Amino acid sequence: VAGGGSQPFQDIRLRGFADRVAVAEALRRIDAAARRLDAEEIDVGTAAGRVLAAPLAAVTDMPPEDRAAIDGFAVQAGDSLGAGDYDPVILLLAEAAPAIAPGHAVPVAAGAAWPPGGDAVLPFERAQAQGNRVEVFAPVAAGTGIARRAQEARAGAVLLDAGHILRPQDPGLLAAFGIERVAVVRRPRVHLVIAGAKEAGHDANGPMVSNLVARDGGLVAALASGVADRAAIARELAAPGADAVLVAGRSGTGSDDVAPLALAEVGDLALHGIALRPGGSTAIGNAPNPARPGRAGTPEGGVPVILLPGEPLACLVAYELFAGRLIRLLGGRGAAFPHRICEVELAGKIVSAIGFVEFRPVRLVGGHAEPLATSEGGGLADALRADGFVVVPAPLEGYAPGARIRVHLFGEEAEIR
Amino acid sequence: VAGGGSQPFQDIRLRGFADRVAVAEALRRIDAAARRLDAEEIDVGTAAGRVLAAPLAAVTDMPPEDRAAIDGFAVQAGDSLGAGDYDPVILLLAEAAPAIAPGHAVPVAAGAAWPPGGDAVLPFERAQAQGNRVEVFAPVAAGTGIARRAQEARAGAVLLDAGHILRPQDPGLLAAFGIERVAVVRRPRVHLVIAGAKEAGHDANGPMVSNLVARDGGLVAALASGVADRAAIARELAAPGADAVLVAGRSGTGSDDVAPLALAEVGDLALHGIALRPGGSTAIGNAPNPARPGRAGTPEGGVPVILLPGEPLACLVAYELFAGRLIRLLGGRGAAFPHRICEVELAGKIVSAIGFVEFRPVRLVGGHAEPLATSEGGGLADALRADGFVVVPAPLEGYAPGARIRVHLFGEEAEIR
Repeated sequence: VAGGGSQPFQDIRLRGFADRVAVAEALRRIDAAARRLDAEEIDVGTAAGRVLAAPLAAVTDMPPEDRAAIDGFAVQAGDSLGAGDYDPVILLLAEAAPAIAPGHAVPVAAGAAWPPGGDAVLPFERAQAQGNRVEVFAPVAAGTGIARRAQEARAGAVLLDAGHILRPQDPGLLAAFGIERVAVVRRPRVHLVIAGAKEAGHDANGPMVSNLVARDGGLVAALASGVADRAAIARELAAPGADAVLVAGRSGTGSDDVAPLALAEVGDLALHGIALRPGGSTAIGNAPNPARPGRAGTPEGGVPVILLPGEPLACLVAYELFAGRLIRLLGGRGAAFPHRICEVELAGKIVSAIGFVEFRPVRLVGGHAEPLATSEGGGLADALRADGFVVVPAPLEGYAPGARIRVHLFGEEAEIR
Repeated sequence: VAGGGSQPFQDIRLRGFADRVAVAEALRRIDAAARRLDAEEIDVGTAAGRVLAAPLAAVTDMPPEDRAAIDGFAVQAGDSLGAGDYDPVILLLAEAAPAIAPGHAVPVAAGAAWPPGGDAVLPFERAQAQGNRVEVFAPVAAGTGIARRAQEARAGAVLLDAGHILRPQDPGLLAAFGIERVAVVRRPRVHLVIAGAKEAGHDANGPMVSNLVARDGGLVAALASGVADRAAIARELAAPGADAVLVAGRSGTGSDDVAPLALAEVGDLALHGIALRPGGSTAIGNAPNPARPGRAGTPEGGVPVILLPGEPLACLVAYELFAGRLIRLLGGRGAAFPHRICEVELAGKIVSAIGFVEFRPVRLVGGHAEPLATSEGGGLADALRADGFVVVPAPLEGYAPGARIRVHLFGEEAEIR
């Protein structure tokens, strides 16, 4: 991660953080390093959720020809003048005629090419066939029920702008425009490293970070678990092929917290220790990029690396604040949190240390936000029970009961309750 | 789809809908038929986005033992009394001692089992080792930095309620609790039938409905495209193995609109023709269920079927109003639209026929909602350009400029603009 000058490396194990970087400065470094990836062309049918790398234009006029827009009888509108329920106009039924002659009605289906001669469609509710005659019960205005050539879009007209995230229906709608391939931003390939000894069945951070990366449009291209020591972490950091490396665990101040040392050894440790609770032992830097050799520490030469704390709640916080932002920006998405926001009244009190950004899980009860207790090094049950979180900015010492606060909602169902 | 008595079948082709069912009545039928599916047990790591079928309880105390919650020195808190920056207290460093004796300090890592004898952790910022001595620069309160056994949860305590939709972080947090398998509602297996002749590269509804089904937690277990005639549609409707069948196309009033006839032949056509624009040619009914034989038309005997219009915008509207609700309810989710909602001022005028529910795409510009023109049988480009939609209830004739309206947002990025 580029920007600022990196401090000379200091081993903070068993010493603690002499000083901590502000969250805003850490975000600035991430934004400077997270340059949008290049584009790739993919089948439109598989493009839901992807980000358009270029504006998308209609390849033909749409519709490419005049068409019937509704089911009914193609007629000359003038023939229906004066028709009424008790005074029907009678037209001659001409099945499958190539053109509409005066006094005639031709059944057409929505989407069919428009027969010449006619200028309106009478829906079946207003006209009924009886033998070879059609009784018309209401008049129709000229132009009704016809989709004119290029009415939707002319060939070359921009349908969607670059940066648009394709919604579930968009690939289908684009297919209807005859578009088969689209240029989208490449999905960030994330190398996820779970540092520390393997504990059977208890690895929280592997599934957690994998799911969050997928939510933010990234692809966990490689996942290494149980990466126990400094040399093994260094090997993972130096492995080629990733657009970003996330290491979870071994980032703290204990004697076995060797991930920052490994990063300083093979690449560049730009910062370690952030004025954030929880998640303050996060580190940010660069790994070497064998595919694009250059000086480590420059965007050209390095692959952005974030070292996340191993304690699951701290890992979640550091992911949400830093890693998710990196993945979203690499993939052409917005920097902002992807969560829904609601503004509610705080039911209790939130205490935060001035100078520290505090990330606090809350539960929505009866339209109010109840802060959940954060116990040091814990908070797992609270993270499960939480409907969302509040971010207390560094200059504040918290919020008083009754304050209106913005809650970022973790899930979809929270709003329904 | 159960409820109400079905009308005797009428072929409305070339005749139009004599009368239309209210949207509210169609929704009532869907709600009556959409009974939550049974549960299945899956690995917790794969459970993001799934719906819990039963409450989830802690299997052990968490933590299962007293643990260090932070990195630092385990001490007896009383020994740190009176310590200050210029007047440090000196303790003896006891590496890896099994217990804490008075006057001693033992380095501990967050998460490690708590050594007996101590009652607090001094973080490394407040204490520094020098040779075999530890200088303590600030006092620590008893209990600091220790996570007590069962502090998070006692064995058997409910962590998450039935019906909870697992967020990206939840599988990891549950794994940290030692939970390996979870009981979730089975994903609805959807049989998707694209009726009508195959047009190369222009099938909008296949990808559109597939993506929407996935968004709503369903699984397109079978997809049949280019199902051209009545007999072929009937065969698809009678195929076993689906929890719901969606047919897109051939539901209108044209002569080749044979999907309702096929459904009436093999199962039960409960209703056809809804007071809705666009999407009014939607039909709802039941297919026979070979796995659970019974009278078609009862929930026991039938598989819910929705016939969606083939025109893509009408198909989208009918999916959002009816099919999505069916899939969500079968899968244990809420009936409500899954879209984010924003309340904004309407920049133009929306005109709607009294008695019809109108679904209207809108674009958000400068914090206002601009209605997009719906051309009969078209609106593809508008659907692409739309940020969301407005639903005009049946009793209203629309909204005047300046009205405050609720917009359901199609995508995530719309809020950021």
